[in-house]
Amino acid sequence: MRIGVLTGGGDCPGLNAVIRAVVRKGTKVYGNEFLGFRDGWRGPLENATMPLGVEQVRGILPRGGTILGSSRTNPYATDDGGQRIRDNLAELGVDALIAIGGEDTLGAAAKLHSEGLPVVGVPKTIDNDLGATDYTFGFDTAVNIATEAIDRLHTTAESHHRTVVVEVMGRHAGWIALHSGLAGGANVILTPERPFDLDQVCEYIEERFRSQYSPIVVVAEGAVPAQAHEVTQTDRLDSFGHVRLGGIGQWLADSIEQRTGKEARAVVLGHIQRGGTPTAYDRVLATRFGLHAVDAVHDKDWGQMVALRGTDIVRVPLAEATAKIKTVPAARYAEAEVFFG
Amino acid sequence: MRIGVLTGGGDCPGLNAVIRAVVRKGTKVYGNEFLGFRDGWRGPLENATMPLGVEQVRGILPRGGTILGSSRTNPYATDDGGQRIRDNLAELGVDALIAIGGEDTLGAAAKLHSEGLPVVGVPKTIDNDLGATDYTFGFDTAVNIATEAIDRLHTTAESHHRTVVVEVMGRHAGWIALHSGLAGGANVILTPERPFDLDQVCEYIEERFRSQYSPIVVVAEGAVPAQAHEVTQTDRLDSFGHVRLGGIGQWLADSIEQRTGKEARAVVLGHIQRGGTPTAYDRVLATRFGLHAVDAVHDKDWGQMVALRGTDIVRVPLAEATAKIKTVPAARYAEAEVFFG
Amino acid sequence: MRIGVLTGGGDCPGLNAVIRAVVRKGTKVYGNEFLGFRDGWRGPLENATMPLGVEQVRGILPRGGTILGSSRTNPYATDDGGQRIRDNLAELGVDALIAIGGEDTLGAAAKLHSEGLPVVGVPKTIDNDLGATDYTFGFDTAVNIATEAIDRLHTTAESHHRTVVVEVMGRHAGWIALHSGLAGGANVILTPERPFDLDQVCEYIEERFRSQYSPIVVVAEGAVPAQAHEVTQTDRLDSFGHVRLGGIGQWLADSIEQRTGKEARAVVLGHIQRGGTPTAYDRVLATRFGLHAVDAVHDKDWGQMVALRGTDIVRVPLAEATAKIKTVPAARYAEAEVFFG
Amino acid sequence: MRIGVLTGGGDCPGLNAVIRAVVRKGTKVYGNEFLGFRDGWRGPLENATMPLGVEQVRGILPRGGTILGSSRTNPYATDDGGQRIRDNLAELGVDALIAIGGEDTLGAAAKLHSEGLPVVGVPKTIDNDLGATDYTFGFDTAVNIATEAIDRLHTTAESHHRTVVVEVMGRHAGWIALHSGLAGGANVILTPERPFDLDQVCEYIEERFRSQYSPIVVVAEGAVPAQAHEVTQTDRLDSFGHVRLGGIGQWLADSIEQRTGKEARAVVLGHIQRGGTPTAYDRVLATRFGLHAVDAVHDKDWGQMVALRGTDIVRVPLAEATAKIKTVPAARYAEAEVFFG
Repeated sequence: MRIGVLTGGGDCPGLNAVIRAVVRKGTKVYGNEFLGFRDGWRGPLENATMPLGVEQVRGILPRGGTILGSSRTNPYATDDGGQRIRDNLAELGVDALIAIGGEDTLGAAAKLHSEGLPVVGVPKTIDNDLGATDYTFGFDTAVNIATEAIDRLHTTAESHHRTVVVEVMGRHAGWIALHSGLAGGANVILTPERPFDLDQVCEYIEERFRSQYSPIVVVAEGAVPAQAHEVTQTDRLDSFGHVRLGGIGQWLADSIEQRTGKEARAVVLGHIQRGGTPTAYDRVLATRFGLHAVDAVHDKDWGQMVALRGTDIVRVPLAEATAKIKTVPAARYAEAEVFFG
Repeated sequence: MRIGVLTGGGDCPGLNAVIRAVVRKGTKVYGNEFLGFRDGWRGPLENATMPLGVEQVRGILPRGGTILGSSRTNPYATDDGGQRIRDNLAELGVDALIAIGGEDTLGAAAKLHSEGLPVVGVPKTIDNDLGATDYTFGFDTAVNIATEAIDRLHTTAESHHRTVVVEVMGRHAGWIALHSGLAGGANVILTPERPFDLDQVCEYIEERFRSQYSPIVVVAEGAVPAQAHEVTQTDRLDSFGHVRLGGIGQWLADSIEQRTGKEARAVVLGHIQRGGTPTAYDRVLATRFGLHAVDAVHDKDWGQMVALRGTDIVRVPLAEATAKIKTVPAARYAEAEVFFG
Repeated sequence: MRIGVLTGGGDCPGLNAVIRAVVRKGTKVYGNEFLGFRDGWRGPLENATMPLGVEQVRGILPRGGTILGSSRTNPYATDDGGQRIRDNLAELGVDALIAIGGEDTLGAAAKLHSEGLPVVGVPKTIDNDLGATDYTFGFDTAVNIATEAIDRLHTTAESHHRTVVVEVMGRHAGWIALHSGLAGGANVILTPERPFDLDQVCEYIEERFRSQYSPIVVVAEGAVPAQAHEVTQTDRLDSFGHVRLGGIGQWLADSIEQRTGKEARAVVLGHIQRGGTPTAYDRVLATRFGLHAVDAVHDKDWGQMVALRGTDIVRVPLAEATAKIKTVPAARYAEAEVFFG
Repeated sequence: MRIGVLTGGGDCPGLNAVIRAVVRKGTKVYGNEFLGFRDGWRGPLENATMPLGVEQVRGILPRGGTILGSSRTNPYATDDGGQRIRDNLAELGVDALIAIGGEDTLGAAAKLHSEGLPVVGVPKTIDNDLGATDYTFGFDTAVNIATEAIDRLHTTAESHHRTVVVEVMGRHAGWIALHSGLAGGANVILTPERPFDLDQVCEYIEERFRSQYSPIVVVAEGAVPAQAHEVTQTDRLDSFGHVRLGGIGQWLADSIEQRTGKEARAVVLGHIQRGGTPTAYDRVLATRFGLHAVDAVHDKDWGQMVALRGTDIVRVPLAEATAKIKTVPAARYAEAEVFFG
């Protein structure tokens, strides 16, 4: 069997580990051949391919990013996208496709499958917000990087008696904020699931200052104040009319400094959370996902996605898997609240 | 309520995170008071205590080890151990005990509970070999440290065209070897669950050398050769009568060098796997265990242990929890075998 | 002898290592007593003190920040600042002062010394821009943190075929940019010493893209374009009037994206460069500075600062030490230029 | 000009950074061509070569080991070694040789130069024991790895009230022990330069235990007891006749446990100190060495070696450079002794 592999969406530590596991097991155990598609759905749409065999996957296990490249190309952006992909795969002699990606990539895979394409999915979201799986690879790496940053920022906060606001990834779900905030000993954690009250945040901060220590606030990039109108143009400009707003982290630091009268600084971790070598946890999970994905192809179990449940890798229908986002439940947030202030 | 806390057995990254979570939640949410017992069961046996409040647990979240100290003291080593502990707790006004430890510590806790002591357990084993929980804290840290070491050793192996044998922890279960071997891209992984065939190991090594790369063998300290008689006194001494055996890692390196005629070196990771700051995963898991343990105390759910199932923290009877060891199942080992050679 | 110790200016990994070495050697070898002054010059100005002995410095060697706290308080902001400090020291029975800080802190120390205060200085600048010493502690830590971030960003840049701009510290000198750019394999390094030509930067970027790899630009926060008028209000606002400017890093990413027509992203490392545990290099250098500073006090060699020359710790007059900033010489920048493009 | 490059001796983080800098600058600035020789002197002796150009050195900066391979082959082991190398270089059209290595590799280079070979050297020793240069690359990485291990071991020592002995590299010079011991806060540091007194070591250990903390002993692999006869066969075997000796670290732990009556454990760091990604310091130093080595070739300054003096890269005669080993001076050891006990 000849199997195509592609990676779509934002990059994520562990993608290469999936690719390697797919190719190593497919080649050795099932005698498959592989073809790499470049840059997500752009690959099969435009016949952008690369060789993919045991030689190509040597040494990539510890490397971040994806040797296949990635993009956010949507195959259904043009009417004939699905047809072109089917035609191209037929022409290239590709019998099946393994699509590694997030909501968008797997959504397209589900649609292609419903149109008859033999496809198997591997879930990827650094934000850990896919409902069908306990965890996704990349998340653990992002949480560790954020936690190390928070560890470092504690000492600088305390030496200067200032608040440090750390903005982490998480547009729609606060998992990275929750886990890195818990692991880093944050004094406030703000997530997109729950609009925050700035007065309450400042109370936690004052409480922390009274303990002789300095506050760390971890905020997901998608968090918003309960009083959304508070983010006004006035907040965005200082008294000299200079620009002061980057994102929610900077806005929060400015607002806290203004209300508490004590220095506050923002640090926006950004892309360092998603690059570089994966943690052991992510390497193992990504490797297992890859092994089980190629098993699903062998079983011709099309339209399925691999997923983690407890310590087992299971299969779930692609359509179901991308149906809804997994947000932080109230009970999990309440666990963290014990440490606020 | 006045709650005693103790940590027993080998140290493990995350112990302090448990203690901190117990004290922070108990104090803030339930109004509990806490008393620290020193050095595991020695504490309540000998009335060795230390103050334990919010002040004592500040800043300990990222620190390895345990501020309470640990020991392998067995309260039932003397006939009256159980009675002395009950008397001492009564005298100190301690209403309940949270025991954090592995098989031995929790086994004693189960026995004390059966004799009427109000006790709640928190599982701790760096080897991840307790059956009642998906994972234990400390394991992820150990696996990451071993994986980083393996990453480093790959380049040294290849520069010198030699085999490197890495001995990791795991006396009775091969979880650390399995996960770090998978994550580190090992060419052979040897675990206690499955006696290994030295000839087969050497075949994998030769296969690897043919690929122009150099082999890494990850071996759990408890792994044994299928032909146990092979570890003879002769192997232990070289032709000058000099000592050459440290443990299974050194024996394996010597045996591989002898059989393949190519240089082999052993690295024994030892205690660096169990010391130092916990990973984010372990800090979160340990913190959640602590929070749920103090909830169990509040519920007077004596004789229970907290455990991880999927992403949930649940309670399981102490007696059941320590009943049998969790070893690496054949299916999990087979996943890794795909990468051998 | 009773010796006061203070730390001033921005925090820096290694400050605690200096304090520990001063106290350990002074106590053990010279029989000194110590008094900690809080928050830089605010301490002696306002009699804000804390106990400082062997107990207080236990365990602080690997910790970032400063247990004494810091501030940018200038003792000469009020006319009688110098006199108040001398009076307070006399009242507290403090015979000598060790001032650990950068240009401002040591400038004040030099002035106080010229007015008769027995003071010894320890240089501290994370930017490595003090002329009198080969290196200062904190710099190596900052360079390592920036290098690790660059390592991580390479894979994300390549997976998405985009430029990543990394903004590092360095307002007046480009040492962190130079060293982390060299160590991280940056394709362009921009420093404050040399205004950059945006067209040239974009040429290097296009050259890099032609090689199938993706460009990393490392820019010091104080770097400026040769055509300074290019940073106009128009650049700061996008076509919707939304704010887009954070600092030079964001401006550069926006400008590169506009000119090359290819995605570019900025990452601003900020305070994570100056917090957290010091590298071994910084711990050793800071420790040696502390040991030699207390020797200088013992020798009553007032008005001197310790400094690194080759592998030796020497003494230089405070006045001379703070006279001029050490910038990146053209020859060192030229070394890095070999790797541009 | 066509330049051969080889790496000899034990591997060392930074070797690839040297190779990359040599090739990048030689190609871009001087228009040189390069040829890689495999496995140290074996390459030119046996005409074992590999292509070496800008493509081959892409991405190797952060990688440990050496893409050229290494060996301890001595070209003068056979009478005609020098002649064969000269013949082979002539046949391959190689005009000059850059030899990267330690005492042995550079010693051979010096001899070949004296016989007329146009050769330039780059010093490499992880032990930092070459007299002609302030530092060599690889050393900083080794010290950081050892320091991180010591950081981790502190908590495990304290939790169990035991002594931990950490054996680090350093057969003839104690630089790694000195620096990692200072940086890690060791309570005793033992180096090859100064035979140690076991009674004195045990006194420091007892002193440390009295402070409620636990001792860490850092010992270089080449350290020896002052009473050498103390290492007897009896010490090597326990009362059951079981083997107990690995190296000095294990012997020391056993001896300490026996004398103090308190548990002691040994950790032997071994090869993890020399593998893996170099620190930023080592990458910068190695890169600068490479740049300056190719300059020396361009200048036809044969028989020279690059070296670090302060912050400058200079050239020194190969013959002189390898003349004597650089050991830890008494004054540097005395700095560390302040922290013993």
